[in-house]
Amino acid sequence: MSHIMLIGFMGAGKSRVGAALAEKLGLDFVDLDRLIEQREGSPVTELFARGGESAFRDAEHAALQSLIAHTPAVVACGGGIIVRDENRALLRQLGRVVYLAVSAAEALARIGDTSGRPLLAGDSARLAPQILGARLSLYRAAADYIVDTGGRTPREVLDEVISLLQPDSPATTIRVSVGDGYDISVGSGLIRTVGDVVRSSVGERRVVIVSDTNVASLYAADVSESLASVGVESELVVIDAGESSKSWATAGAIVSELAGRRLGRDGAVVALGGGVVGDVAGFAAAVYVRGVPVIHVPTTLLAQVDSSIGGKTGVDLPSGKNLAGAFWQPAAVISDISVLATLPETEWVSGLAEVAKTALLAGEEQLAALEHAAPHLCSRDHVAVEEAVLMAARFKAGVVSGDERESGSRECLNLGHTLGHALERVAGYGSVPHGMAVAVGMRFAARIAEEVVGASSALTTRTDDLLDALGATDPIPVGIGAEALIDAMLDDKKTRGGVVRFVLVRQPGDWSVVPVEVTVLKRHLDALLHSE
Amino acid sequence: MSHIMLIGFMGAGKSRVGAALAEKLGLDFVDLDRLIEQREGSPVTELFARGGESAFRDAEHAALQSLIAHTPAVVACGGGIIVRDENRALLRQLGRVVYLAVSAAEALARIGDTSGRPLLAGDSARLAPQILGARLSLYRAAADYIVDTGGRTPREVLDEVISLLQPDSPATTIRVSVGDGYDISVGSGLIRTVGDVVRSSVGERRVVIVSDTNVASLYAADVSESLASVGVESELVVIDAGESSKSWATAGAIVSELAGRRLGRDGAVVALGGGVVGDVAGFAAAVYVRGVPVIHVPTTLLAQVDSSIGGKTGVDLPSGKNLAGAFWQPAAVISDISVLATLPETEWVSGLAEVAKTALLAGEEQLAALEHAAPHLCSRDHVAVEEAVLMAARFKAGVVSGDERESGSRECLNLGHTLGHALERVAGYGSVPHGMAVAVGMRFAARIAEEVVGASSALTTRTDDLLDALGATDPIPVGIGAEALIDAMLDDKKTRGGVVRFVLVRQPGDWSVVPVEVTVLKRHLDALLHSE
Repeated sequence: MSHIMLIGFMGAGKSRVGAALAEKLGLDFVDLDRLIEQREGSPVTELFARGGESAFRDAEHAALQSLIAHTPAVVACGGGIIVRDENRALLRQLGRVVYLAVSAAEALARIGDTSGRPLLAGDSARLAPQILGARLSLYRAAADYIVDTGGRTPREVLDEVISLLQPDSPATTIRVSVGDGYDISVGSGLIRTVGDVVRSSVGERRVVIVSDTNVASLYAADVSESLASVGVESELVVIDAGESSKSWATAGAIVSELAGRRLGRDGAVVALGGGVVGDVAGFAAAVYVRGVPVIHVPTTLLAQVDSSIGGKTGVDLPSGKNLAGAFWQPAAVISDISVLATLPETEWVSGLAEVAKTALLAGEEQLAALEHAAPHLCSRDHVAVEEAVLMAARFKAGVVSGDERESGSRECLNLGHTLGHALERVAGYGSVPHGMAVAVGMRFAARIAEEVVGASSALTTRTDDLLDALGATDPIPVGIGAEALIDAMLDDKKTRGGVVRFVLVRQPGDWSVVPVEVTVLKRHLDALLHSE
Repeated sequence: MSHIMLIGFMGAGKSRVGAALAEKLGLDFVDLDRLIEQREGSPVTELFARGGESAFRDAEHAALQSLIAHTPAVVACGGGIIVRDENRALLRQLGRVVYLAVSAAEALARIGDTSGRPLLAGDSARLAPQILGARLSLYRAAADYIVDTGGRTPREVLDEVISLLQPDSPATTIRVSVGDGYDISVGSGLIRTVGDVVRSSVGERRVVIVSDTNVASLYAADVSESLASVGVESELVVIDAGESSKSWATAGAIVSELAGRRLGRDGAVVALGGGVVGDVAGFAAAVYVRGVPVIHVPTTLLAQVDSSIGGKTGVDLPSGKNLAGAFWQPAAVISDISVLATLPETEWVSGLAEVAKTALLAGEEQLAALEHAAPHLCSRDHVAVEEAVLMAARFKAGVVSGDERESGSRECLNLGHTLGHALERVAGYGSVPHGMAVAVGMRFAARIAEEVVGASSALTTRTDDLLDALGATDPIPVGIGAEALIDAMLDDKKTRGGVVRFVLVRQPGDWSVVPVEVTVLKRHLDALLHSE
């Protein structure tokens, strides 16, 4: 059987969208709560009243299991189906899982009367966000596709679900023209295509997959199977998750592991993970026997929109950050947006801040599209995410295609990073997430741009509103003063001759690099610090 | 004053060549022994008889010192002048020092009667080689130029001395066409031109000199002064001398040192030393802030003729040799042949073995020239050495210009290295000098070439004779068997599909890479092992 399983919070529109979808696709429609009622011979409310939630969940699981023998159908599941671990496994087994996302407030507004909802008995306005919050990561983890229903008509939701369910909807590829050139593939479920991409980009090489303790358990088996399916033998090297692995020592350990697994010059490395894995495994690939190809499979939004593109690799030494590295262009980048569903919220917002940076640099069209998509991005709606990743990847691919070694136009990518880096450093690396620091830096740069390059105050407002809408709202932590930040900016490697160089945006798409006086920085920094 | 000081063993022709040189240059001629006799009022033999060698050396030192006030002259010094440390310093102060080299046997044949030579009293045939052996490294260390007189007429020696003394005899430069391209400069005294070369190749950058504990004390001050003279600020990082510094850990330590000295992306590294320094400092430069320019100042023959050219850098890890590295082309290579005078004999012969390899690959003209020059090379005659370094550097520059990443013609450079690497590995790295292992490998490859590609037995004889003449005569150490060597060759990273690929020379300049069967290897290896 291969059903289409709709999951989501109450009021997400599972029944309505599900019925329409079934009709459109010519499939049966099953409302799981109705199926339970038929099988148990009593209404859901009565099941709850009689045996409590536990008895209901037993009945629900049994009903779900009965679908194994059912002809292909669209199934609207109850909101709590994902709470039980065995149900999530069963959902995957039953077919493709679509999560219809909705905020708690919009859900309540849609359903109106909550009297038939035993879980909301009492203060529904207080309970609904609590329940949704507890379930959110489970919905996302269970889903093959996420569709945000917020502010959308059922028809719009239906159209998006149908577009996502297209059989073999091909990945979009972006060409990067550096060296021999390479493709970035962006799409859903691409982790299962790694084998094909490796075969087509570097041929039939032995592969060592480098991943970290967080990501390996989730996706290494999929990657390895995908490689095996095209006859490519692979082994796995797992490093500790976290920033501390972005080190000279870990790079050396990876090189030793590659040698220990007897990877030859005719081998290749697949870097499966976030920015740290990409940086350290990319560097190890660059130097192992003076260089073997690397294929990046970035699993964080930040890595997909930024660090996996452009060939920069680098590691820290005890004496400083990013001291060693190499320009080593990947043979391919595979950005599977499905794997982003399980990212922790902080990392998600960090990635969105870089997306916002890119939109400001790219132009009005991209900025307006991102402003429009912002709420859907917060729900990790797959179409919105794919579009955002594509936009950012396209822009970065264009920039690095012209400027591999960061002498000219690549400098624009530092928008928001001058203060951002200083903030990360003063706060102590790791205590302020990179993207949040960049968001603060972008707000700051917008204010400087008003004064120095005549940007409009409207653009500052748009920058602030966009970052707010994307959830990048963390202020500069209490206790960090303007002096320390300015000292750190003056010390940054990008400063030349004691002047702080800023990337400033005059209008969307129109940026320049401008030296800014310390007194100007001080005044705006004070204002920013005191406004909070 | 700027005299021309001639030093060397008895019978080298100091007086005869000195007098002719003085006449040619229109200078006074001073025979130091005669000056001593004038100043002391008695013949040298009497001084010896009266106060022993010590009294004579006192008188000799006083006479030498008196030359400070003398008008420019050609000075023929006594054979033992270099024994006292203060004399060697004084020689340098007095002017340019030319060492006329001669073997003990030829010296005795030239002087005939040794009765007026107090140091040779007794068994002169036994004493002469002993005394020369003890002084050899002192002569070389004291010399600005070395001229071999062996088998040459006084006129030929005179001509070579005059050519070396040409004011501002320019360095010969060889262009390497890889990437942006760079020049190799070869000549005498070039260490004092490092500043100019750095300025002209990379501009006015801050420089960190990386050297080792052996070389830094000899030449780092000269390099630093040369840089200062053109306004380039420099600092010095010193690593431990020896193979163990060619490591991932040392490369990391150098990167940290570069950061600690706040070298920016607009800085540069000068690698001053032998192959290990070039490899590890080159690698550190390649990865430090993703790459800063490196200028190689190789101070061993092996580094000048081989490792400094072509951009290969690399380090070992505890798990294996050369596991990590980068292709990082230098901005310039400065090969000062003067610094080779003080190399230990083993390293000298190692370098000559690579020169012999190059001549066989380059062609008949180069091979014949090297055969002719071999005895002079053993004496480290400056003209012969410069020609050999130029020949080898030209050949390697040509090869790597076409093939940066070692896929095609660069493979020829592995001549002699297949067995050579296996031998180094089986014997334990460091126990057989690299060049000696390559020499054994070349003798072996010559025999294989006779059988497999129809090379003449005369070429094998020429190969053997050349290596013998260059002093590369060490056999395979006792206790190392054919089986172990063949296993190591099969395991070498250059083997493909279990076949051992050999670079074989059919005729000088005509080489090919040929897979050779294990049975053939075994037979020739047994013969080579039993012939010894």
